[in-house]
Amino acid sequence: MFRNLSRAACALAVGIKNQVDTSQQPLLNEPMINRMCLQKCLPAVQAAGQDCQMYVGDRIKRAVGFPQLTACCKPLRYKDFIISYDTKNRIPNWVYEHLQYHKFYKDDPCDRRVNVCPFNDDSAALGNEKPKFHPDCRIHGYHRADVRDYCDTEYELGLMADPANYPFDAEACAETQVMTNVVPIVPGFSCGPWFDLQCYIREKLVRENKSVYVCSGPLFLPCENDGKVQMKFDVLGEGEVSVPSHFFKVIIIETHDGNLELESYMMPNCKPEDGEEVKLDDYLTPLCQIEHASGLIFFPEKKVCFTSNNKRRGARLHAL
Amino acid sequence: MFRNLSRAACALAVGIKNQVDTSQQPLLNEPMINRMCLQKCLPAVQAAGQDCQMYVGDRIKRAVGFPQLTACCKPLRYKDFIISYDTKNRIPNWVYEHLQYHKFYKDDPCDRRVNVCPFNDDSAALGNEKPKFHPDCRIHGYHRADVRDYCDTEYELGLMADPANYPFDAEACAETQVMTNVVPIVPGFSCGPWFDLQCYIREKLVRENKSVYVCSGPLFLPCENDGKVQMKFDVLGEGEVSVPSHFFKVIIIETHDGNLELESYMMPNCKPEDGEEVKLDDYLTPLCQIEHASGLIFFPEKKVCFTSNNKRRGARLHAL
Repeated sequence: MFRNLSRAACALAVGIKNQVDTSQQPLLNEPMINRMCLQKCLPAVQAAGQDCQMYVGDRIKRAVGFPQLTACCKPLRYKDFIISYDTKNRIPNWVYEHLQYHKFYKDDPCDRRVNVCPFNDDSAALGNEKPKFHPDCRIHGYHRADVRDYCDTEYELGLMADPANYPFDAEACAETQVMTNVVPIVPGFSCGPWFDLQCYIREKLVRENKSVYVCSGPLFLPCENDGKVQMKFDVLGEGEVSVPSHFFKVIIIETHDGNLELESYMMPNCKPEDGEEVKLDDYLTPLCQIEHASGLIFFPEKKVCFTSNNKRRGARLHAL
Repeated sequence: MFRNLSRAACALAVGIKNQVDTSQQPLLNEPMINRMCLQKCLPAVQAAGQDCQMYVGDRIKRAVGFPQLTACCKPLRYKDFIISYDTKNRIPNWVYEHLQYHKFYKDDPCDRRVNVCPFNDDSAALGNEKPKFHPDCRIHGYHRADVRDYCDTEYELGLMADPANYPFDAEACAETQVMTNVVPIVPGFSCGPWFDLQCYIREKLVRENKSVYVCSGPLFLPCENDGKVQMKFDVLGEGEVSVPSHFFKVIIIETHDGNLELESYMMPNCKPEDGEEVKLDDYLTPLCQIEHASGLIFFPEKKVCFTSNNKRRGARLHAL
């Protein structure tokens, strides 16, 4: 069998010459070439071969390079927020914002800034066009979400970095419409507790504190099904965009006296019940639960804060 | 509501003092502390505050640090292979090995090495104990898989880096039993085409070529369910270890004349039919399909090889 396969494989051997744009869409319907010559890698490999004593990881990296989860290690920089992108699910891992009072509110009557938030009535009155959703070409075509993926589905495009956080900054507002900031949400979700939480951050936390750091992102929580614990979620369009079951917000509040304080929330990706009175504190969630579900570690360089959180919680358990 | 929540949150404020081991298991059943003071971060924040002109990403990184997908950016180094770990699914993203003839075979009669592979009969005869599965403490307790997660499930512990690849190296053999190298497999999977593929790599590719680079990993492919495309997979134990639907192997062959050639395979995580004749070439899969499903880009620094693959495939489409 190996001999046959070898012949088959060799018969398919092809040389490599051309260079093309890496951001092209995938050509998944093409016939298979299972073996190809990577002539260009030759010098690197010869070099690696010369040094058999080199550590295996370095040999591999030097000869063929490690596979990359695109833009996972290097968050994507935007004007007023920063995004870590999940290439498997085609949605962000997290979106980080730093909100400051002076960016929201005008105390000085001479401040001539105009509210340009496309979702603001004045802005609409000014005839400002709502910005259109656009892709981020730094993400490879294989792993990009597209507005078309959301067509003919029951889901809406939800934004992690909220345009209403940048009322006087047209560029930042427009940037929130980048597809790397978009997650599929159940219609009505963004009008429920998620909306209240965004208002609470702007109207209370930002007003009353020096500044607020907000990290938002999706979560996938398993559920029990036929006596088995299973992960089950919809996948949208050709881009195969995953629909998360929950969302989180981790909020770090920088108080005027210079302390940092933390609040963390988790909310299901669903429509709130009609007439349901929303209590934000029902959604307060220990950071460790969010870290367990998200695969993230917050404050990785500040383990003392992070781990002490558990310790202190344990201490309070007895105190309460 | 905000006022009430604020009081509730402030009432929960706690200070940070102790430092503890970050690899401890999560304490998910503890009561919630939703707000805590992170005094330790104060100097960094004051510094950040002094420079309001600093880029938002740098301000956030300096004040609170970015959340980390542990060990995602830095692959985990082992003696004879290297692993990128998926903290969300508690299984590897990929495991890379570099296989060389002299590590498998003894041409020199004076070569006194003894086959110590724990799954080898001679080794068993020598009374070598099978190494036990062990955790990698570099992975945070929140995101570690444990052998107990597999108890009372229908799945077995499957190894991505194969101990049979290190017959004369007890340390490397033992290292393949690290939990970061383990993925849940359906019983019988490892005796089917996956086993044949491993034999084909050792018996043919490694024998006939200078060396072979092998990248193995899990895949999650959606399926159509009630007219909807859905992702659905089992999740095991408290560690919530995800069971992949497929596995891939991307094989880069370094020939004696110095070329690199590529073969890529994808196989479903299932038991082969009884009496089914396995043909490996039925599992040959275009690299782009594996990259699309895995969220990975292979050869990121060698885009010419990678993207030309598509071009060449397109070219062959007309040639054939």
